[in-house]
Amino acid sequence: MKHNLEHTISLLTRTPAALNTLLRDLPETWTLRNEGENTWSACDIVAHLIHGERTDWMPRAMRVLQLGETQAFDSFDRLGHIRESHGKSLEQLLDEFARLRSDNLTELRALNLRPEDLQRRGQHPALGVVTLSQLLATWATHDLTHLHQISRVMAHQYREAVGPWSAYLGVLQCAGHSAP
Amino acid sequence: MKHNLEHTISLLTRTPAALNTLLRDLPETWTLRNEGENTWSACDIVAHLIHGERTDWMPRAMRVLQLGETQAFDSFDRLGHIRESHGKSLEQLLDEFARLRSDNLTELRALNLRPEDLQRRGQHPALGVVTLSQLLATWATHDLTHLHQISRVMAHQYREAVGPWSAYLGVLQCAGHSAP
Repeated sequence: MKHNLEHTISLLTRTPAALNTLLRDLPETWTLRNEGENTWSACDIVAHLIHGERTDWMPRAMRVLQLGETQAFDSFDRLGHIRESHGKSLEQLLDEFARLRSDNLTELRALNLRPEDLQRRGQHPALGVVTLSQLLATWATHDLTHLHQISRVMAHQYREAVGPWSAYLGVLQCAGHSAP
Repeated sequence: MKHNLEHTISLLTRTPAALNTLLRDLPETWTLRNEGENTWSACDIVAHLIHGERTDWMPRAMRVLQLGETQAFDSFDRLGHIRESHGKSLEQLLDEFARLRSDNLTELRALNLRPEDLQRRGQHPALGVVTLSQLLATWATHDLTHLHQISRVMAHQYREAVGPWSAYLGVLQCAGHSAP
């Protein structure tokens, strides 16, 4: 399937509300526990999404439009979520994610990107040349990778509780597929 | 983490609304496409969840309470979603899932299960002896396994569109971990 900007925006619009509906006011055993040392809880993941809204997606899109391939993207801080979440409740983080996403989508729509704009090229510090189209498709798919992760982290909390049914629950076989 | 009935109900309560928020009125390229032959779309997965509400979770809980280990559970029809979804839109399926789940949770709460009830045993046709506690924990984890699957099926639609970023998106490395 080719990238379609309207389909991307449709998904990006829904993610904050979907996470809010799933996570708000859930018992903390679901939202604050992780999969073990150096892994993330659902709450950490929302903070990571916030950090992406601030420093990754729209800043990189603007870099492509303004500087093309002449200046590589700034590196993304994979531990930036720690700073984002400091002293905040999950509910505050969900509100902040919704607000930042909404602002970013307003900014994206205001660019009125044409098909030829989506083919403009930028420079990723590790992946090399990428297009604006690929960047925006990745923004939406990144939401899905973290929805996938949240469901896995939450399911992990019931790994023992399900007893022999663990053999039938695919999410409990998922190894995480973390980026290198 | 041990099974906690209130935590299970908290999660079971939220799943229909979370799926509704994520999926309702999304472009059909996200909701009706699957991962290839003999795989499920997000819409198929909602129909499967409906089939579970009708034939799996509460009927099996009642079987444990009424007959214990003396009569094994009826087998679950893994293709039952085809019948459930026939002629229905995703929006109709989301409404139906929400209604059935709400009715089932009303019925579950009305049982006023005590800790000793949760240790009562039933007979799974393939897994052998299981407890009511394990059955109810599995109901919640089954929601998560399908949220995990939905995020993967949707991400698959942008596998090409993300270009070189596919290497960084864990959901695109996920092999599905289907039950045998």
